[in-house]
Order: sequence, then structure tokens, then C-alpha cells
Amino acid sequence: MTEESYVDLLGVEDLDGFERREHGGTEYRHYPDYGKVERGTVLYDGEVVRGFPKVPRTLVLSEGVPRYFEDEVAVEEKMNGYNIRVARIDGEVLAFSRSGIVCPFTTKFLRRVYGEELNAVIDERPDAVVCGEMIGRDNPYTSHDYDEVGSLDLRVFDVRDGPTGEPMGVKERRALCEEYGLPSVPFFGVHPVEEAAEEVHAVVSELDERGREGVVMKTPDVSHQLKYTTSAANQGDLAYAFSLPFDYGQDFMFRRIVREAFQAHEFDEDGDRDERARSLGESVLGSMVETVERIEDGDEVGERHTVRARPDEVEAILDHLRGMGLQITVEEDRRDGEDRFVEFVKKTQATNDKTRNYLEGGVVQ
Amino acid sequence: MTEESYVDLLGVEDLDGFERREHGGTEYRHYPDYGKVERGTVLYDGEVVRGFPKVPRTLVLSEGVPRYFEDEVAVEEKMNGYNIRVARIDGEVLAFSRSGIVCPFTTKFLRRVYGEELNAVIDERPDAVVCGEMIGRDNPYTSHDYDEVGSLDLRVFDVRDGPTGEPMGVKERRALCEEYGLPSVPFFGVHPVEEAAEEVHAVVSELDERGREGVVMKTPDVSHQLKYTTSAANQGDLAYAFSLPFDYGQDFMFRRIVREAFQAHEFDEDGDRDERARSLGESVLGSMVETVERIEDGDEVGERHTVRARPDEVEAILDHLRGMGLQITVEEDRRDGEDRFVEFVKKTQATNDKTRNYLEGGVVQ
Repeated sequence: MTEESYVDLLGVEDLDGFERREHGGTEYRHYPDYGKVERGTVLYDGEVVRGFPKVPRTLVLSEGVPRYFEDEVAVEEKMNGYNIRVARIDGEVLAFSRSGIVCPFTTKFLRRVYGEELNAVIDERPDAVVCGEMIGRDNPYTSHDYDEVGSLDLRVFDVRDGPTGEPMGVKERRALCEEYGLPSVPFFGVHPVEEAAEEVHAVVSELDERGREGVVMKTPDVSHQLKYTTSAANQGDLAYAFSLPFDYGQDFMFRRIVREAFQAHEFDEDGDRDERARSLGESVLGSMVETVERIEDGDEVGERHTVRARPDEVEAILDHLRGMGLQITVEEDRRDGEDRFVEFVKKTQATNDKTRNYLEGGVVQ
Repeated sequence: MTEESYVDLLGVEDLDGFERREHGGTEYRHYPDYGKVERGTVLYDGEVVRGFPKVPRTLVLSEGVPRYFEDEVAVEEKMNGYNIRVARIDGEVLAFSRSGIVCPFTTKFLRRVYGEELNAVIDERPDAVVCGEMIGRDNPYTSHDYDEVGSLDLRVFDVRDGPTGEPMGVKERRALCEEYGLPSVPFFGVHPVEEAAEEVHAVVSELDERGREGVVMKTPDVSHQLKYTTSAANQGDLAYAFSLPFDYGQDFMFRRIVREAFQAHEFDEDGDRDERARSLGESVLGSMVETVERIEDGDEVGERHTVRARPDEVEAILDHLRGMGLQITVEEDRRDGEDRFVEFVKKTQATNDKTRNYLEGGVVQ
């Protein structure tokens, strides 16, 4: 397809800002930043796959929910994994990352595990893009564990139209996924707006106790979405970020502390706030001190991941990550039945270097 | 004095980066950033007043001190106020802020309280610049209280040569100040380098218990300096910054958390770390929740200061701050004997606006 046709399809002036990449001999483009189109928009072999829209967040349920919604609010669980969009282009199922890069690992994994189901959905809805979260501990990007998922699985939270990004309504989408055997994210019902904030508050408290991430609230037609996260998620993120303090953005940390303060204001009764402060302090300080001590002991720290999948799938992800310029150290590598299990560490240079320098008495200017 | 003469005196290519200001009808220049000369360097009526050098910091005493010093280490208290350099130019004593701006308040205050003493020191040492901290609760820049200071006072920590910035040795300077009646910062002795880290550790622990800021370690000739702060100072700064979270730099907050982590590693025994984490969490979260609640209650938050000085001095600071573009609200204004007492608030727009917006259910994109 020519550049002009893409420009027409997208309704933009030009394709500046799109980056070129290659998958299996096919050149494609993706838009990695925010700007003229949704971040992660892909142009692949004449097809457009719109990026997943950024979901706004409220910091105060009791005010944000009634202000943002007019009528009914559908509530689904927000899960802690990595966002993936699955489209069929030229007959091939492809899984795209949030920023619009083909993930060869997820592509192979989903073709094997859900190939039939995905094709069936797309047969019924041509141009459908299945959007979901890949969850479970054995994945190359995140490391949150879910009891209900042994190793890695998909949970669908949206089906959208590729060229327009138009979403399918919540009920229709959940029914479609159920019909064809694709698992959806957990569902917490549809509530009239005047009851929704209170309902969501209760759901979030319960999710928090179970160490889960949060919720996405949606109009039933998914034209509007709003997210809200648990303290467990906020503090879990903080603990992780402060375990690699010089490799994470300070903004990442700051925003999560802000979320905790507004949640404390809205949620906490008497003793709760002290407990929240204590555990926030522990998340921030405890994980950072642990990193300092590991480096003092001569260890290297990094982002540790495990992958348990078919040998070609594991090969694909290691090649892919190295191709992205990451420094990967494989710490364990073995067969596990039909699968290959690999534990690897993505090097986080800044935390190792700076921490070691300070431990050796290097000064801060 | 011509531009060329300044260029020669400073040994620089040109005066780019210097900003022009005016005090009492005299135009002067100052260098507000880091770069080709010390930040805060002043060119005033043919004289050069070098900026106060940036003092590096160690995060680990036991490694930093022996690495940074060779022989003897003089230890003085680092006090929590605002840095001031006092020079006599064309017969007039002037007090310059850290960034090299004449502070009319401090200038008037010091002329009144220490005019004779400062002139006596400078009579003996022409070109002397007296560097010190202005401490005490009644000042327009900081708000730390010192028991030994009722309202506002000076503590000298350096005497330097204006044009070269060369420092006077610790003992000579302290003797000079004592002789002429200028108060110095507290002194914790001179220690052989092999004992210094342990000595300083003990001093810092004791200062921490008293809620004080920390120490500056110096070679006896002040050619090298190294600073280290208490947990009380780190956490006090954090509590203050998180009470105005959207007006403070995230880097400011992050660096203080990093200091706490390294100090926890070096200082804490068994239960200490839990207590440090708890109180860090409280500093961060508690003060931010308090701000959220004050704004919820309809209050405005801001940087609150008090000034208690002669009426013309108070007038001078209010004019000066407004001239710098700050929004000042006077909340109390009364005579107090010979003095005028003013309590005022510097408006912190971002914290008020963002917090109110979030409380009203505004979303975070």
C-alpha cells in the first residue's frame, strides 16, 4: 500500500513519527509516541491497526465516577500483565505490543494456544482486533503472579475495529469471547451511575486484599473508560521501581505516591492511614535498601523474568529482546516437557553503576 | 568597570549567562546557573564576589570519608536556613543570596545587628566575603526553628576572598569570627581521617536525635568539603516537599529518599529500619494527605513564613519578593515593640490547582 493510502485511511497529513520495523520479511510501521494518532498504531501490509487508547484515571472515585459517567457503568478487572492487540493480517494472526511492535513470542504463543478461537472470532468479525492482557508469571515483560493462571494466559478486555478503533460493547464482546472460547477479564457487573462509585469502592477494597491491580469502568458501549487502582498495585509498583531506583522514571514513582495520598483521603478510616504510611515506607525504602545490600554483596540487580513455552517461542523472545538492544543474561535454561524454561535478567545499568559508585564512597555533586 | 575587566578578572571568554539586576540605583550582574563560574558569582561596581562553591555529598560515610580526605577532617554543623554571602562594596555591606541577588532584608538586618562586627572583620581582611547561614524561624525563605535562636541570626561557616573565592582555614576563620563577635556554626573538632567517619557517624546520630540538619566535613584549609545530612533533615525535607507535592521537583524528593536508603544501609540496626520506613512513609504520605484535606476543606496551601524585624526591613522583603514575581498573601501584620511582625504565604499555584481538580473528580490523562 502506498504512503498516500495510509495517510487517507488515518486522516493525517503525513506519516512523520511512524517508525519502520520488519517482521518475517515484511516491513511495517508503527507509531511509538503520543501525538497525531493513538500510540501504537500499526500500518502493516495495507492494514491499519489503531493503537489502544489511553485510559484516563480518577484519583477520587466518589467525585470522578459521577462526573465522568452519565448513566450506566460497566466494571471489569484491570489486570497486571502486558497489553496486547491481536489482529489477522493477510491471513496471519499477529500480536502487537502496546507501542505497536510485533511480539514474536506472544504471536507464536497465541497462535498455538488460541489460534482456532482467535480465527473464529475474526472470521465472524473481519477487521476485529482482540485486545487483552497477557498475565501470569512466565512472560518476558512483567512478573505479576495470578493464582488462576499457571504460567501465561490471555484475558480479553476489548474487541475493536482495526481501521477505526471503534470498540464493541461490553456485553456483546464478553458473549462473543465466551462463545468462541477466549477468556475475558473478570466482570463486576453494570451499575447505575449513582451507585457505581460505592460499588467500585467495595470491589477495589476486595481486589486490594487479594493483591490485585484494579478496575476499568466503562460505558456499556465502551465509548468512555476510566481506571482506578488498588493500593496493592500502587505499592507493588513502588517497591519494584525502588528496587531499581536509578532505572525507573521519577515521575513513575511520584504518580503512584500521589495515588496513595488521594486513596488514603477517600478510603482510610482511623488506623488504616498509619498502616498505609508504614507499608508505603516499607515499599519505598525496604526494596531500595535490599538492592543496596545485594550490590554491596557483589550481586548484580536487574529485571528478572521467566519464560516457559515451546522452544521456538522462547528462542523468538530472546532474539527479539536482544534485537531491541537489551542486555540479557540467561540464568537458567532447561527443558520442561515439551517446553523450554528460561530464567533471564534484563540488565539495569544505571542502578548497578550508581549504587556501586555510592557504596564505594563516590560523591554526589 | 568595563565588561573586559570583569572578563579578565574572572578568566572567562565573555559574560554570557550573567543576568543584570539593580539594587539602590546600582546595576550589577549575577550568574544564576551552574557553568563557567561558580553559581551566584556577582559583579558589582567593579568588584567580583565569587559564588559559594557547591559542596559534594557522600551517601556512605565509612567509604566516602577515607576516599575523599587524606589527612585531617574538620567537622562543622550544617545548618538549615538560607545561605548568604556578605561583602563590602564601595563601603557598603551587602548580603547576597545563593544565586547572587542582593537580599535587601538580610542586608538591612545584618547592617543593624552585625554592622560593626562585619566591618571590623573586613577592615582586617579587605576582600573578605563572610559566608554563613541565616537561621531561625522568622525569615522569608526557610522555616526551620532553632532553640538557640529566638527569631533570626547569622552563623558563619566560611570566610572567602571575593575575587578568587579562596577560603580561610577553619581555625583561623573561627578565631577571627570569635575575636570580632560574629557567631560561627557549631564545631565538632578536627579528626584524623582514619577516625573521622566513625566520629562523624556519632555526631550525625546525635544531631539527628536533636532534629538538626547535618555536618560539613572540611580539610583544615577548606580546600575540600563534603557534606552529610541526618534522617531528620531528609525526612523533614520530604514532609515539606510532599505537603506541596506539585510545586516541588520530583528530583528533590527522589534524592532524599535515596539518601535515606543508603543511610539505612550504613546506620540501622535491627528495629531501626522498620522505624525509619514507617516514619519515611509518614513524612511522604501524611503531609500530602494533610494538604489534600486542607484543600478539601476550602483552604489554600502555600509556603508560610514569618518575619519579625524593623519596619523598613520587613517592607524591603515584601517588596523584594513581589518584585521577584511571587504571589504573597499577608495573613498577619502587627507591631511588636520596635519590630513589625508579618506572617505571609507564598502561593503555590500548582498544588492548589491540581489537588482541587483531582478532588473534584478531574481525570489524570
